[in-house]
Amino acid sequence: MKPIAVDLMGGDHAPAAIAEGLERVSKESHIPILAVGTSEAVSMVDGLDNVTVLEAAEVVEMDEDAAYAVRRKKDSSIVRCAEAVRDGRASALFSAGNTGAAMASSLFKMGRISKVSRPAIATTIPRPGHFAPTILLDSGANADCTPEWLVQFAVMGSIYSGLRFQIENPRVAVLSIGEEAGKGNSLVKETYELLSKEGRINFIGNCEGRDIMAGDVDVVVTDGFTGNVVLKTLEGGMRAFAKAALGALSPTDDADDLLTKAMPRLTPLITELSADTYGGAALLGVDGLCLIGHGSSGAEAIFNAIVEADKIAQLGLIEAIRTALSGS
Amino acid sequence: MKPIAVDLMGGDHAPAAIAEGLERVSKESHIPILAVGTSEAVSMVDGLDNVTVLEAAEVVEMDEDAAYAVRRKKDSSIVRCAEAVRDGRASALFSAGNTGAAMASSLFKMGRISKVSRPAIATTIPRPGHFAPTILLDSGANADCTPEWLVQFAVMGSIYSGLRFQIENPRVAVLSIGEEAGKGNSLVKETYELLSKEGRINFIGNCEGRDIMAGDVDVVVTDGFTGNVVLKTLEGGMRAFAKAALGALSPTDDADDLLTKAMPRLTPLITELSADTYGGAALLGVDGLCLIGHGSSGAEAIFNAIVEADKIAQLGLIEAIRTALSGS
Repeated sequence: MKPIAVDLMGGDHAPAAIAEGLERVSKESHIPILAVGTSEAVSMVDGLDNVTVLEAAEVVEMDEDAAYAVRRKKDSSIVRCAEAVRDGRASALFSAGNTGAAMASSLFKMGRISKVSRPAIATTIPRPGHFAPTILLDSGANADCTPEWLVQFAVMGSIYSGLRFQIENPRVAVLSIGEEAGKGNSLVKETYELLSKEGRINFIGNCEGRDIMAGDVDVVVTDGFTGNVVLKTLEGGMRAFAKAALGALSPTDDADDLLTKAMPRLTPLITELSADTYGGAALLGVDGLCLIGHGSSGAEAIFNAIVEADKIAQLGLIEAIRTALSGS
Repeated sequence: MKPIAVDLMGGDHAPAAIAEGLERVSKESHIPILAVGTSEAVSMVDGLDNVTVLEAAEVVEMDEDAAYAVRRKKDSSIVRCAEAVRDGRASALFSAGNTGAAMASSLFKMGRISKVSRPAIATTIPRPGHFAPTILLDSGANADCTPEWLVQFAVMGSIYSGLRFQIENPRVAVLSIGEEAGKGNSLVKETYELLSKEGRINFIGNCEGRDIMAGDVDVVVTDGFTGNVVLKTLEGGMRAFAKAALGALSPTDDADDLLTKAMPRLTPLITELSADTYGGAALLGVDGLCLIGHGSSGAEAIFNAIVEADKIAQLGLIEAIRTALSGS
């Protein structure tokens, strides 16, 4: 079994939170890890069971221009991770660092799957009461898109949903501002036309923002601008709601009692619905597995994302996308 | 004081819910109303204090093609409402019906304010802990926009925020997928350039989806596609959160007790944060006041929206927009 290449230097709390997450992976699973980072960082995890380390002298910072930094910093942890996947020394790359750098490294080093126009970020969004999340893509890789790219996103998202969550014939919809055909902006209208004729997916038409967490659609296709706005809007909305809910519960006589009883049950829920824990969005379309974590990931999120990366690595996702898109 | 022209026929629960809302307005305020609808509908409110009725033989249904219906149904309630504003017989129009029909009637009958390229829908989004909501525009009138239109939306939104919520120098941002200049799709990048040189507003740069309910920006400018997706995503997210919160509270021994205590406090909150109660989004840029309610509005939402319409009617909003845009 090949290891997961983990970028020790990526994330707001790196390398400490990453190292802590790896320690848990080492203790609680048999997942092999290739931990990549500066000598100081790798010393934090060197010697852990199932952990191999690889030193990299450079770091791409969270706010650096990604494409430029990746080209210049050839000995950075994220570039070394991508090379490990390219060379078959790792089954997947995981980084909670600069998203653009993870994308650029993957693109430069692993390359695109043949016939894929652009890779897309596929994010899983939990829906209360459903075992499987909704897949939203593109959630940020391509700010401006063409209808043809969105068709490829639809195919890749459908494969991902089907393989990862065992959903038969996943329901794919294009995100719009009305359910009827003909509603939307020009991109959506043209995409709708193309998807209607698309035999590789189960296209159910337009969906709206309110459907994303509702459970009637499995894969939501959109351009990377809209998708990213959706993600961050949900994140902000959840925070506002949680804040307001605490406010509603607190200014009363029996508030302490209520809070004591309610919070242990509400906290996991807020965590589940929080964008901080979407962790491990998949970059679909590159010729190797790249999972991107939220920058604010703590040890728990890192642990979850690595377990997820290992699961996906065993699905044959890249091969399935290659086969499906070979006729594109 | 001129009356508010109210479309009795608009909304999922029309005319009963509208009539019930009007009854409360009549009892609890001095706001004069011009109630417009079929003979059967107007009979429900005829005789109420401060209510004048106007019969209209036709109705534009919720799912009708708006522009076509408004042209064809010259004696529809929504068209008659718009004519009343145009002719100075009413100070504002309020409808919870077909949004497109309210927009089309206003455009055809009242016309645009001189130099306004396109009217935009300005929606108020509550932010917990803040007295004033965030203004989001365009939230659905124009699916495809140009940078120049977005600049006008910014100016109109700033005036609205300042007049209605007494915010001095409202902070205006363009919705994007990164805070730094240069982040976003091509529309946002061009809009950013124009807004940076715009002297009529307090432009603070890009904002992200998570800032909409956070309180650091007063006016969020975006195209009507993205704005509408944001609104409906928030609506769906709130529902999912509320559903999950109830689920988290229920499967326990003392669930009944907790629910009994918590729900009376959580319900108004869910209502406040629910898109159903944004009610009374303003169509800015037409030469007369048009307020659009959510289709699902019940009597309470109708009452609130009419009180809101009356407040806005007294602000001189149209005149202020006319003055600001005269140099556009």
